[in-house]
Formats: sequence, structure tokens, C-alpha cells
Amino acid sequence: MAGRKAHKIATLGSHSALQILKGAKDEGFLTICVVNTMRLSLYRRFKFIDKIIEIPSFSSFGSIEDQLIRENAIIIPHGSFVAYLGIEVNKKMNVAYFGNKAVLDWESDRKLQRKWMQIANISVPKRFKKGEKIDRPVIVKSYGAAGGQGYFFAKNQKELTFRLKSFKPKKFIVQEYVIGVPLYIHYFYSSITNTLEILSIDKRYETNVDSLGRIPSQNQQGLGIEPSFVVVGNSPLVLRESLLGEAFNMGEKVVATSKNIIKGGIWGPFCLETIITPEQKFSIIEISCRIVAGTNLFINGSPYSSLYWNKEVSTGRRIAMEIKEAIKKGKLNKILS
Amino acid sequence: MAGRKAHKIATLGSHSALQILKGAKDEGFLTICVVNTMRLSLYRRFKFIDKIIEIPSFSSFGSIEDQLIRENAIIIPHGSFVAYLGIEVNKKMNVAYFGNKAVLDWESDRKLQRKWMQIANISVPKRFKKGEKIDRPVIVKSYGAAGGQGYFFAKNQKELTFRLKSFKPKKFIVQEYVIGVPLYIHYFYSSITNTLEILSIDKRYETNVDSLGRIPSQNQQGLGIEPSFVVVGNSPLVLRESLLGEAFNMGEKVVATSKNIIKGGIWGPFCLETIITPEQKFSIIEISCRIVAGTNLFINGSPYSSLYWNKEVSTGRRIAMEIKEAIKKGKLNKILS
Amino acid sequence: MAGRKAHKIATLGSHSALQILKGAKDEGFLTICVVNTMRLSLYRRFKFIDKIIEIPSFSSFGSIEDQLIRENAIIIPHGSFVAYLGIEVNKKMNVAYFGNKAVLDWESDRKLQRKWMQIANISVPKRFKKGEKIDRPVIVKSYGAAGGQGYFFAKNQKELTFRLKSFKPKKFIVQEYVIGVPLYIHYFYSSITNTLEILSIDKRYETNVDSLGRIPSQNQQGLGIEPSFVVVGNSPLVLRESLLGEAFNMGEKVVATSKNIIKGGIWGPFCLETIITPEQKFSIIEISCRIVAGTNLFINGSPYSSLYWNKEVSTGRRIAMEIKEAIKKGKLNKILS
Repeated sequence: MAGRKAHKIATLGSHSALQILKGAKDEGFLTICVVNTMRLSLYRRFKFIDKIIEIPSFSSFGSIEDQLIRENAIIIPHGSFVAYLGIEVNKKMNVAYFGNKAVLDWESDRKLQRKWMQIANISVPKRFKKGEKIDRPVIVKSYGAAGGQGYFFAKNQKELTFRLKSFKPKKFIVQEYVIGVPLYIHYFYSSITNTLEILSIDKRYETNVDSLGRIPSQNQQGLGIEPSFVVVGNSPLVLRESLLGEAFNMGEKVVATSKNIIKGGIWGPFCLETIITPEQKFSIIEISCRIVAGTNLFINGSPYSSLYWNKEVSTGRRIAMEIKEAIKKGKLNKILS
Repeated sequence: MAGRKAHKIATLGSHSALQILKGAKDEGFLTICVVNTMRLSLYRRFKFIDKIIEIPSFSSFGSIEDQLIRENAIIIPHGSFVAYLGIEVNKKMNVAYFGNKAVLDWESDRKLQRKWMQIANISVPKRFKKGEKIDRPVIVKSYGAAGGQGYFFAKNQKELTFRLKSFKPKKFIVQEYVIGVPLYIHYFYSSITNTLEILSIDKRYETNVDSLGRIPSQNQQGLGIEPSFVVVGNSPLVLRESLLGEAFNMGEKVVATSKNIIKGGIWGPFCLETIITPEQKFSIIEISCRIVAGTNLFINGSPYSSLYWNKEVSTGRRIAMEIKEAIKKGKLNKILS
Repeated sequence: MAGRKAHKIATLGSHSALQILKGAKDEGFLTICVVNTMRLSLYRRFKFIDKIIEIPSFSSFGSIEDQLIRENAIIIPHGSFVAYLGIEVNKKMNVAYFGNKAVLDWESDRKLQRKWMQIANISVPKRFKKGEKIDRPVIVKSYGAAGGQGYFFAKNQKELTFRLKSFKPKKFIVQEYVIGVPLYIHYFYSSITNTLEILSIDKRYETNVDSLGRIPSQNQQGLGIEPSFVVVGNSPLVLRESLLGEAFNMGEKVVATSKNIIKGGIWGPFCLETIITPEQKFSIIEISCRIVAGTNLFINGSPYSSLYWNKEVSTGRRIAMEIKEAIKKGKLNKILS
């Protein structure tokens, strides 16, 4: 690195920015947070953020990209990048970007996601074609449903037909409703060492659906509450050890398949959203190909990350460790895109 | 401190005493636990408690106050102080007392609490006047309902009228039942540095209401279980990062308003009991102006406290850090009352 | 230990093996994992496992026992030992075995377990005799029900009679269904220092029963979901401090009684599965006389273990600490059987 400005770690002020920048700082990087005016007061509170670049709104991101390049920043994308900037802005970004942008097209398209899982031979819920009769409970999701809106359940064909009449979205999927418990597995794949780690596990805390169980059945009936699935938090879990092998296998199949179907494949953090049935089978509902918000539980370490590392390693810090290692080995280009 | 006995940290053996005294010990203080005979065997187990002062029951607290003064103790009040000693005993205490006693009157009166939140411009559930017709689901709470007893739900006017007939408490409130998930935010406000920290977040574990969800709807019907809300534990949460800014804002408004309406204002730990709706809005159910039991989850650190401090900081330890800092700066009187 | 090979810590690759061997390594022991072929790929991932002994299936355990003896290994049994090897194989094992094998007979027999708790004067749910009329909700459990299968609820005599007609298992118990919240207390009793520690607390994450609460009452009705109780994970809890004294008392009564009824009594880790009622009373459903899977949450420490130890102590590590202490004091034989 002699004669060259040291790399800095940068991200947007949202989602898991605190974890990412805290982890980067702990690994010795200078940190930059790109913040819209509204959130300025939040990110100013934390000393591990070395520099704040203010923009009026996230849509002005393009205007400060050159500045990030001059700072020799590496951008760590998280869940808000696609939500706030859009896929195209992500793909056209010129600043160094951790992770493989080619994955974005696969991740953002439910059909391609499903294809990926199926090629990887990972169990996904049965999907019904348009107009096809259902033979089991289903969940109906609109395309691009964001933040938990645009879903409903139907327990049989009669209910499905009835509910669809008043369902506004035109594009939607009808999918088997897998009865079991949700569990989110946070993976990290190092393309430098070719190893896969499970760093932590969580479940989401969703409003209002996670309050329903506290309302007695007899009261629910009259209230006519429509469940909603807006994620507002997370709580920690560990997985039964006899299922951990399968969790690793799924992760490795996802990684191996990605190398065949996506140029360069996937690396860095990703998450499988699973449902575990009473037969102890995983059913995969979704893949996120970057750091997920559930990892914010583990800013001060997790029971799983402590199996690999003798320090408090969050997913955010793990990313910084990977970048440090890549720089040391002269392989930084291998993990940017 | 030359020539003067070093300060010791003391509290009642209950609620969060282990956390408080462990944190004090970690910061280098000698620790004292005032224990009633029944609980002696519990507090004797822990080596970080330097001295145990036994009293037959908490009502004898007055008899050992002089001893605490001679020991140069600083009392850290927690939730059991008002419950076991009463407000008046707290207010008349002569031993050094961390926090502002003037807050006690506001905190213990639901109407004043509500006024405080309203002046601070923080959202609270709608409250119905006596006899006023309700237009939405409500929760009816008796005044001074302790430990989760003395509540009921009504989904409409008809049910409310019916249930009130057999409701024994004469003083009660009828309040909008906000449908959403509960979340308790543990704040710490330093009046020494004028900064607000969010140290951790939890949800309560309440019997029997947190077991209802595990009983199938068809079984609940016949069992006719009446929900109860007795807090017997806590579990950890993190908050969606995009809501964290609002969480800080609420905390700062509570602190700023307290300075206007309560002589000296609030400092040290406090907690907002919130409900988060599917619209991602906080509704504030209650404020606790001291350390809450949910912080016991984080005796060995929390994801939030690690954003400020490079050690395992609980709320209990944070209090000790504040006292240490105040002593160092000669401002101890500023944080006692 | 001069002139003698140092002791190694060994266990079966399952249940809580990662925690046990990580804890052993942290305390300076060499570690051995006995793994069946199917799970080889899982346990190969972790550097704290010094040696893996592969067997085609757990039933071949006998064939490698001599090797373990030559390695000077101490076996740490966990929940899978009885499940995979059976009680007799455990009892006849010649390799050094941590804990008291005489406890196995008591633990594996529901009637003896119950007798133990009753002698210890600990509250257990009422049990109804065969054919006896029930006067409250009950849970019917088959003998040897494993992994959550073979249970049902009945809210009254009529439902019980009806459900029993189609219940296949011939041996079963009819037990009061205690309405309250479940909580698992992880104890460690040191027979070397004669002290009892509560190291951590969890609740189980069970499929599908922990997903029921998220399904609105009106939808549950039609789906006709039968609840199942298959444990697939765990989540952390802390207990209200005013109940902690009783939790210690129960643990001490269990230990004291064990010394009277079981030759040598119990030592090392054990767990009480409790239900806490709205009256804040514990009802004990089951005792496990070894490390339980819920402790896997605390591989990097727990709020309770940090009250005793200034390092990250899991139950697995605590076992290794005990063995180290016993070796140092020349009392290793006292804790093996």
C-alpha cells in the first residue's frame, strides 16, 4: 500500500451501517457514512464514524461518487442499496463495491431466485401456476411486495378465489404455505480462502403478526385483525446442532451453483430465509445476497462466530476482515466489482 | 478524594441489584447490598458484593440508613424501590441517591406521565373519558395495577359495558388498544456530558400471555383462559436501524421536556415502553425513570452499548461509569438528589 | 501429571459437541470428536477440534473405545448419548466418563424423575391415574416420546375420552396442563467446591407450535393444524431477579435429594424444564441431568455466567474448568464414573 492512500470503508446511513462501520473501525479502517439530511443526527452520534458525507436524499448519491473514489473508499452494500438507489444505480457505480453486482439481477427476480435454489437442489415451497387449483394452504404475495405489505393467506381454493377478487396487485405468486418456524441463517463465504462460515442466526420481529399470539383467540375473532409482516426488529436464535450440517450444505450448494449460473458467483455475506417443518426439513423462502439486518443483533459477537474467531466478530466486521486479508494478499480486485 | 472515604455503591437486593453491583465492582467501587432476610441466601452467592446489610424486611430500610451514610454509600434506585419502600420513603432518604427524586411524582401518576409525553410531542394511545363511547378496541387498566394484574381488553362498546359490570377496581383508565409489537428501549442520559445513549432493547416475557400463542385456537376457545401479564423474564431485541433515529429523538424529547416541567429534569437510565404499529410508528405506553429489569439481559454487554464503549457495558455498569466520571470532575452533587 | 499423558476431552459429534469442545480448547485441553460418517463434514470445519475419530454410525462406538482410553480421553456425555447409544452402552463404558452414570436410570424413567422431584419437595404438575376422571386441562404424553412427537391436549373429560380412542401408544401419562410460560434453567453443580451456579436460561424454539401464534385465529380454525413440539432451536431469556432465589433453591433441593436417593448423587450440568404460572410459581416438567442444547446460545458467555467468572463461560467451558480444577486438586476420580 506504500505510496497509495489507504482504503476506507463506506456505506449508506441505513439498515446495518452502524454494524458495518463499527466492524471496519475495529479492523483499523477509516470509515465514511453517506447520510441523507433526515438521518444526519443519528449517525453523528457515533465516534467510530470518521467522516459523514451529507446528501439531501439518497437519490443524490451519484453526486458524491467522485468524492468517494478520491477517498479511496470501498462501498459495502446492504439491504437499503437496492431499496433506495435501485439496481441500475448499483450496477453502474464506479466506486469500489464489495461483492458481485452480477448477483443483483438474480436476487431481485423471484423467478430467478427460485431457479437458483432449484438448480442447487434446495427445497423450496411448491408454487402454483396462474389459475391452477390449489390442494393445500397458500400464501399469495404480490411482486415487489416491500416491507411486509401485499400478502395474504388462503386455506383452500374457495378462500383463494374469494380473496383474489379484492386483491389489487396484478402480478403475484401463489405459493404453498409451509407450516413451521422461521429461521434466518447468516452465512459468510470467503472467496479468498474458499470457506463458508455460519456467523449467526435470527428470527424477525414483525408487526403486527408477532403480537397476534398474545391476543386470545376469542378476542381476535371480533377484532378482525389483518396480519401484517413489517420487520421492525430481530431476536437471536441458535439452531439444533444436528441440523447445522444441513445448514452448511445448503449454503455450499448455493455458493457452488452461483459459480455456474452467475458470472463470478457469489461471495461475502448472504442469508437464507428458511422455514423448518416438524419433519425437521428446511424450506427456503428467499435468499438475500448481502448483509441482512438480523446480523445487527451480533455487533458484540455471536455464539457461532466465536467458533472461528477469538474476538467479537459480527458480519460487518467479518467483511472488513476479508477486505484486509484481500489487501494483504494483493487480491482486493477479486472481491470487488 | 484524598482524606475522604471512597464512595461505595449500594442498592436493595432485588430487581437488577446483581447487574448494578457487578457493574459497580467492574468500575472499581466497593459494593453494598441491602437484603431482607428471605433473600439473603441469593445475594450471598456473589463475590462482587463486598458487604451485605441484612434487614428483616424492606420496611426496616430506615434503620440502616445511617450506616449507609457512614459507609459513604451512593444508593442506586431500581424498580423495587418504589414498590417496596414507597415514594415518600424514597423522597425523604438522606443517603446519597443517584437520580432526581423530583421525577418520582411524575412517574408514579399515569396522568402526569401522559402529560409529560404529550408536552414532549410523543405519540401516546388515545384515552377515553369516563362514560365516553369507544370507537376502537380498548384496554382497561386499574390504577396502580401492579405486576400485570387488573387489566382487560374490550373490542367494542358492548363488550366494554359488559366487562365493566364485573370489574372490581373503581379507579381505572380506558385506553385505545394499539395493535402492534411491544419493544422496550433502555436509554441512558448523561447530564455530565449532555449525551443520550440507547444501551439495549428487550421485550418482556409475560405469564400467561406469552404462552397463549402456543395453544391452538380451537383449544383456547374451550379453555376460556383469561390472559395475564405478569413479567417473569425478558428476551433481547434489536430495532430496525431506520427506526433508531426516531428512538433517539423520542428519548431526547423526553429529556428536554423533563427539564422544563420537573425541577432539575431527568438523568441516568430510563426506559420507554413502546408499541410499534404496522405503519412503523411508535406509541408510548409508559415511561420508567430508572433502570428496568430488561437490562439484566445485557450484564455481559449489548450490541448497542458496544457502539459507544470498548468494554462490556450494562446499564448497571454505565451508572457506575457516570458516578466515577462525576467524582473525577467534581460534579457528583449534580447527579445525586 | 509428570510421566502421564495429559487428559483430553472427547464427545460425540452431535447436540452440544461444538460448545463442549470449544470450551475444552479454551481451557487448554486437546479435543477429540467421535463422528459418524454422515456428519464428518460438519465437524471438520472447526479448528478447535484437534482430532476426529470417524465411525460408520454411532452404534459402532464400542469399537473405538479402546482408542479413547489410550488417548487418555474423558468423555463428556450430552443429550445424544442416551438417544444414540442407549443407557446400557453408557453404563458399560470403560472410558473415563464425566458425571454420575447412576443418574441415568432415574433420569430416563418418568416415574422415578417425578419421585425425585417430589422427595425434593419441588412442585410438579398433577398426574391422573389410568381411568381417573380429569377436572382440568391435561396433556397426554406417550412414554418415550422423542423429539416432540406423541403428545396431545385435552381440555376436559369428554375431549380426553374422544382423543384417546385414536391415540396409538399404549403406555402414556395423563398430566395436568399447567398454563404458563416455559423457561429452562441451566445449572452447574460443582461437587469439588460444593457450589451451585445458574449459568444461563433459554426457551426452546419448537416447530410447528411456535409458529401457531403468527397464524390468525380465524385461519387456524380451518387449517386444522395439529401442534407439534419438535425442538429445532433455542432463544435466550433472563429470569425476574425476585424469582432467582427460588430457582437456586430448587436446584439445591434437586442436588441434595440426589445424594440421598442416587449413589453418589448428581454433579456437573443439569437443567430444570419449568413452567411459570401467573402466580409466579414454578412447575417442573422435566429434569435433564447433563448439558442441554439451550446452552448453545451462550458459547460466547451469558449474563449469568459473567456473575461468577471474568471470562466467556459456557456450560461446555464450565465442565472443562471443573475437570481442570479436579486434576489440579487430585480429585479427578470424584467427578468421573
